[in-house]
Amino acid sequence: MRKIVISPIVLGAFITTTTRADGLPSWNEGPAKQSIVSFVTAVSDHSSADFVPVNERIAVFDNDGTLWTESPVYFQLVFAIDRIKAMAADHPEWKTTQPFQAVLEDDMDTLTASGEAGLINLIMVSHTGITTGEFTQIVKDWIATAKHPRFNRPYTQLVFQPMLELLAYLRANDFKTFIVSGGGIEFMRPWVEQVYGIPPEQVVGSSTKTKLESRDGKPVLLRLPEINFINDKGGKPVGINQHIGRRPIMAFGNSDGDLQMLQWTAAGEGKRFMGLVHHTDDVREYAYDKPSHVGELDVALKQAQQDGWTVVDMKADWSQIYPAE
Amino acid sequence: MRKIVISPIVLGAFITTTTRADGLPSWNEGPAKQSIVSFVTAVSDHSSADFVPVNERIAVFDNDGTLWTESPVYFQLVFAIDRIKAMAADHPEWKTTQPFQAVLEDDMDTLTASGEAGLINLIMVSHTGITTGEFTQIVKDWIATAKHPRFNRPYTQLVFQPMLELLAYLRANDFKTFIVSGGGIEFMRPWVEQVYGIPPEQVVGSSTKTKLESRDGKPVLLRLPEINFINDKGGKPVGINQHIGRRPIMAFGNSDGDLQMLQWTAAGEGKRFMGLVHHTDDVREYAYDKPSHVGELDVALKQAQQDGWTVVDMKADWSQIYPAE
Repeated sequence: MRKIVISPIVLGAFITTTTRADGLPSWNEGPAKQSIVSFVTAVSDHSSADFVPVNERIAVFDNDGTLWTESPVYFQLVFAIDRIKAMAADHPEWKTTQPFQAVLEDDMDTLTASGEAGLINLIMVSHTGITTGEFTQIVKDWIATAKHPRFNRPYTQLVFQPMLELLAYLRANDFKTFIVSGGGIEFMRPWVEQVYGIPPEQVVGSSTKTKLESRDGKPVLLRLPEINFINDKGGKPVGINQHIGRRPIMAFGNSDGDLQMLQWTAAGEGKRFMGLVHHTDDVREYAYDKPSHVGELDVALKQAQQDGWTVVDMKADWSQIYPAE
Repeated sequence: MRKIVISPIVLGAFITTTTRADGLPSWNEGPAKQSIVSFVTAVSDHSSADFVPVNERIAVFDNDGTLWTESPVYFQLVFAIDRIKAMAADHPEWKTTQPFQAVLEDDMDTLTASGEAGLINLIMVSHTGITTGEFTQIVKDWIATAKHPRFNRPYTQLVFQPMLELLAYLRANDFKTFIVSGGGIEFMRPWVEQVYGIPPEQVVGSSTKTKLESRDGKPVLLRLPEINFINDKGGKPVGINQHIGRRPIMAFGNSDGDLQMLQWTAAGEGKRFMGLVHHTDDVREYAYDKPSHVGELDVALKQAQQDGWTVVDMKADWSQIYPAE
């Protein structure tokens, strides 16, 4: 019997090839996976006409509905509600003041009826008046303990396994991955590094103003009840320019709130990738596009179909939705 | 005669060691260089009590007066003046309107007398009303051609060679290097990657608001004559928190405008490095601290002496100021 000797070099090449082909195991074979792989291959290949230097390989991802679930309501709203309840003992007046009364009575209809003004009020009261350090700790405590009502899992386990694989696949091909979300920048930063491998400095989001103060002789940043920036819709290209300072070559979203980010990405020169996650799986996750009180997808879907952007059909394209417990 | 054989592995080890020891060749031996090397060694050493994980090795640098010269006036003001002159043909009214008349007549006394309001007016008119893409091109054209009146060199050759070496030395030790400057973020981004090796997404600076518009069916960002953020003094910790989202472990400045950034860095837990460039060399560069119309250094120098921050004496500590031509 002959021995088969495999040299480390040959084995190394084999492993590399295998890893590449298997980099997206939760993506079923189909046009969505194919479009991702062919884009990444083209821009990473020195001999390709579509080659993009490493420092320009910027990929941006919406968060709510794109990297994690956003139903039945945006998770940051759940955080705000839980925070209001935790603060209620010091605010007896909330028992008879809207929208706080609605929160304390779990009356979602009245809360919804309070409209954008009511929700902004809720966010401001629950998110400000404390230092950035205090807020970070509150977010960390909440994200470690709160659970989703339907799936009974921590919210950080309701991230999409195929998107985790995509982020890792992009970074393995020297992309820099950013979050560009309408959500609060300080609400995301405490946990996204561990969950997505995206460091705080690569998070773009909505924010309140902060102010430098001195407390016990030490500088602190106080979170003020004043909006600094809303990173949604037309604000996304503004936020991308402000934080990143160059145009992404790849953008992924899931709603009309991402339309301008996708258009801004598409308008650059050279090869581009624009993708949408379409929520089509009401068994394993949720099925919705329009009308919807979260992540409404209408105009962006039409433009995707018209311009040949990649639309991920969650039910058909993803063999697994969430990471194994 | 015996041959001496040096194996590639031994040679490699030798080169590595040499490179490390020689990583700061323009820094004279002395307490400043020693404090840098001992800090970087301590936080990079796994076995050290001061070890800092790679993802937390954030180093921030002021730009004007810290990474490049800022005399006789901030270079961005020269850019604004040149731009006003270039725009003057379309603005005959400027011949009799201040502060534009002063600019066109090279009357620096009257320009200075116009105060902060006059200078902001000048910056707004020269920096806004065009798209971000157009502004980037204007900056690129200017920086490629303009020359410093005393040194007769492009401004990008008036960067400090020892600081270029420090930036490279930090990155070789897995630091992420950021600029945190009072200067305009969009004025720096077009050239800092090539000059400092710092990519646009690692630049924090002052900014005007921008607005998404459609031009010939393509999205553009219009630069508005409205201040978005002033990244100076107490604004520096705010800007650091907004853009980076974690506290630096190392900060370098040169003026009282950097005091709060240095204090913010110092207030974190664990080993920290706070440094100041003291302009002490009127032969090779400039000598000034207080009073000064650029980079006034007074309170920060006192705190540095009191708290044992590193003060770089440009004349004594740097064997070379600028890169070779």
